[in-house]
Amino acid sequence: MSTDPKTDVLATAQAAASGAAKAATKPSKKESKLQFQLKVPKGTKDWADKDMVIREAVFDSLSKLFKRHGAVTIDTPVFELREILAGKYGEDSKLIYNLEDQGGELTSLRYDLTVPFARYVAMNNIQNIKRYHIAKVYRRDQPAMTKGRMREFYQCDIDFAGSYDLMVPDAEILAIVVEGLTGLGIHDFKVKINHRKILDGLFQVCGVKDEDIRKVSSAVDKLDKNPWEAVKKEMTDEKNQPEEVADKIGEYVKLNGSLSEVLEILSQKEELLANPIAKQGIDEMTTLLTYVQAFELEKHLSFDLSLARGLDYYTGLIYEAVTQGSAPPSNASELKKNKKSDDEDASEYVGIGSIAAGGRYDNLVNMFATANGKKNQSIPCVGISFGVERIFSLIKLREAQNKQINIKPTATQVFIMAFGGGPDWKGYLPERMKIAKQLWSAGIESEYVYKAKANPRKQFESAEKSGAPVAVILGKEEYLEGKLRVKRLGPEFANDDGEVIPIEDVVSKVQEKLTEARGVEGVDEVTRLLKGL
Amino acid sequence: MSTDPKTDVLATAQAAASGAAKAATKPSKKESKLQFQLKVPKGTKDWADKDMVIREAVFDSLSKLFKRHGAVTIDTPVFELREILAGKYGEDSKLIYNLEDQGGELTSLRYDLTVPFARYVAMNNIQNIKRYHIAKVYRRDQPAMTKGRMREFYQCDIDFAGSYDLMVPDAEILAIVVEGLTGLGIHDFKVKINHRKILDGLFQVCGVKDEDIRKVSSAVDKLDKNPWEAVKKEMTDEKNQPEEVADKIGEYVKLNGSLSEVLEILSQKEELLANPIAKQGIDEMTTLLTYVQAFELEKHLSFDLSLARGLDYYTGLIYEAVTQGSAPPSNASELKKNKKSDDEDASEYVGIGSIAAGGRYDNLVNMFATANGKKNQSIPCVGISFGVERIFSLIKLREAQNKQINIKPTATQVFIMAFGGGPDWKGYLPERMKIAKQLWSAGIESEYVYKAKANPRKQFESAEKSGAPVAVILGKEEYLEGKLRVKRLGPEFANDDGEVIPIEDVVSKVQEKLTEARGVEGVDEVTRLLKGL
Repeated sequence: MSTDPKTDVLATAQAAASGAAKAATKPSKKESKLQFQLKVPKGTKDWADKDMVIREAVFDSLSKLFKRHGAVTIDTPVFELREILAGKYGEDSKLIYNLEDQGGELTSLRYDLTVPFARYVAMNNIQNIKRYHIAKVYRRDQPAMTKGRMREFYQCDIDFAGSYDLMVPDAEILAIVVEGLTGLGIHDFKVKINHRKILDGLFQVCGVKDEDIRKVSSAVDKLDKNPWEAVKKEMTDEKNQPEEVADKIGEYVKLNGSLSEVLEILSQKEELLANPIAKQGIDEMTTLLTYVQAFELEKHLSFDLSLARGLDYYTGLIYEAVTQGSAPPSNASELKKNKKSDDEDASEYVGIGSIAAGGRYDNLVNMFATANGKKNQSIPCVGISFGVERIFSLIKLREAQNKQINIKPTATQVFIMAFGGGPDWKGYLPERMKIAKQLWSAGIESEYVYKAKANPRKQFESAEKSGAPVAVILGKEEYLEGKLRVKRLGPEFANDDGEVIPIEDVVSKVQEKLTEARGVEGVDEVTRLLKGL
Repeated sequence: MSTDPKTDVLATAQAAASGAAKAATKPSKKESKLQFQLKVPKGTKDWADKDMVIREAVFDSLSKLFKRHGAVTIDTPVFELREILAGKYGEDSKLIYNLEDQGGELTSLRYDLTVPFARYVAMNNIQNIKRYHIAKVYRRDQPAMTKGRMREFYQCDIDFAGSYDLMVPDAEILAIVVEGLTGLGIHDFKVKINHRKILDGLFQVCGVKDEDIRKVSSAVDKLDKNPWEAVKKEMTDEKNQPEEVADKIGEYVKLNGSLSEVLEILSQKEELLANPIAKQGIDEMTTLLTYVQAFELEKHLSFDLSLARGLDYYTGLIYEAVTQGSAPPSNASELKKNKKSDDEDASEYVGIGSIAAGGRYDNLVNMFATANGKKNQSIPCVGISFGVERIFSLIKLREAQNKQINIKPTATQVFIMAFGGGPDWKGYLPERMKIAKQLWSAGIESEYVYKAKANPRKQFESAEKSGAPVAVILGKEEYLEGKLRVKRLGPEFANDDGEVIPIEDVVSKVQEKLTEARGVEGVDEVTRLLKGL
């Protein structure tokens, strides 16, 4: 049962059988000419089997995290009116999927969950909300499947909207990042933090004109992938900054360390403190320090002045969690030179990127809210998006490295079988069904072979495939005496005959055996994988 | 926090503030000219608040049901290559949403979950699978919001693919329908069943030509909404059947009753038994009877020869669950005459329709599978789709009728407050954060007010809004002595001062109070609603 996205065979479309008695009729030669590829669209994939089990467990872990912090969830349509998305993503707007104009409104698939959230808050006049949203978003980007970059992918977002005391919700978002990643067994991560106001202030201090700030900022943002020399060249050659401006920026953006260390250094920079924007940012970071200490987060944070984040709409604290796996391999530039196909993007070679990212955006809701004919009414927001596709890749790697872990795709606990023989043997199918019904009613996941008569070997094979730890066996003679057999399954129980019990005790005996099978801890394989146990 | 889809105000788009220090700048008059409606696209809606909690509980109940029957889940892309959907939906193909041709492949939003499932099975050469899928599908239909008919809506499907003994998986699907609906507190339902082969055979017996069978069948399908006279008129006037053919069909399709009763009647109809197609259908229904009795389903079933089901691809057993709420109101035709707007469809007045429906479709996978260059290899399928939007409407009605039930949108269990005063009173915010961190680490959903200093009344109001049953209170003096107070919340605890405990005992004391609050049964409000308790 492979889900290899490369499966790529020629398919023939057949007209559906329509008349009676035509069920098995083959299409005429003419009809079968219409050929097409049997595949999913580029940049998308089917999820199935163990991957699906792991992904659901990741979503469950994050949902519980978000609920623990008092958040509610919302669900918005997968497409929005085209104007809602317009002017929100700068250059990346070209990556938006439009729906065809089939009459009626013009719509586009959502590009992220943040803009629909801001639209929702503004449309419903919401003053404050903590909301999470786990859903797919769409980008007509160059896919890099192996690194988890897809055209259809999940985002897991939590955002706090509302006017609260400075840096209080921001600190809790950082707590959520740390709690979320450690909860998924990821420990070797750093959360890089920075403040847009400090960045903007230092650009001013270094002599960048206001109108150039965003483009200089986007050059700085590339420092995680490129050496300083390349970034400097972009500033001077492409972005027309004088060399001394670039060099001065270079001094600042090389600064990084713990929040308290970097704040200590910045408190010495008089020219920066003299800039009102930078000063405001530094003050906010000082306030943040107190809260970060209360949450014991400092060891996970790295105050990094080179962090700029691409999106225009951030206005305050920004952050990005990276792991060792996110860093570029040491031979990245070598790999880049050798890249063979235009289809594969260079960023294939720079690690998997950030595994969570976000920041404060205080003006986005207002862009929609002023529309309501009301005064400019600010609904400040701060949020984080977990990069679940990338996190998933890390967990898959962990699974591959741990041979102990054996995740089964079904939840089946009990397999019901019947053994018998002789000319009068009918296979006890309705009898197996009756037992199944009792177990289902008790909430126990149960299966049996969908055959009237099945031989014992086939039934054991199916049971093994299902991964059920317990079998209920209807023996031809025993069942006539009102009895059946309950036994553990698995190689270590090959010689265990189980227990013969009265039929009416089946539910309680099965529950007893299942408790036994789950062991003392009662931790299942997926939990074991996520916790890194 | 309303999610009224009618919110329909004019909105002004503002260009995002881009330069530094421009955060609060208003756009120029010119920029603000671009106006658009702040709304969601027609036929879609935002889900939020209690509705979202109920919907998640419904999905959870159905997922557990599906897992109990050994099913795995898959997730397919929201859009498919256009050719995959082509030729599958007959006339309804016009309702498919296409994505714009932006270069590359032509794609369309999925119309249901069945065709993507068949594509998945064929593409991966799967011989057998029991899969469930809960996801949104898209139809450019005339929306009827109040009846739960939307352009974007959820389907909850389970399908069994594979060659099994006759009627064995079919019977289990019927068991799943009954288990699923009763599990959601729905008891006043009937599952109408019929067999395509019996229908096709009886049409032949009545003198319908093979090529007319599907269109006559679709006329019969309207018998749940229209009287026989109207259906007969459609057959004779629109579908060119002689009156005596229509009359003969009329005699047959009026038959309904329990599975055993109707089988008894049919076993007297010699002309029907002489038709090989009908005979095969009747034999299969006889086999089904045994299994249905093993599952104790007979009282929920109604063998109804007028059930035809719209889709062309069914080949065997078909079924449709209806409730009293699904039936047309007695004054339906009166209402129809008075309908005012073209926007509202007549079917607004015929109840909410079926709440679950499906059947056997043995040729659909083969339409894709033959494409693989392989021999015609049949993968028979049988499945059911729960109409969750309609089920949701029923549960909302139940909620409205039961004032006892009070569903809260958040999961918050504990609200952390601080009380103090005087000139040196700072509000204990970092201290509240420390307690929150401990509770979160123990998995307990906890909140506090995002203000450095908050007065007790404000904090109690926020606690009440959150619905938390327990409060942790940091008193200015008590906390300095290493103590805090844990108390129950709610009107009946207004005079309860709670218990003063050492800070280090906070987690265990909170857990104790929460167990107390949950009461003996430990059943939450949503479960109570779904079970109809």
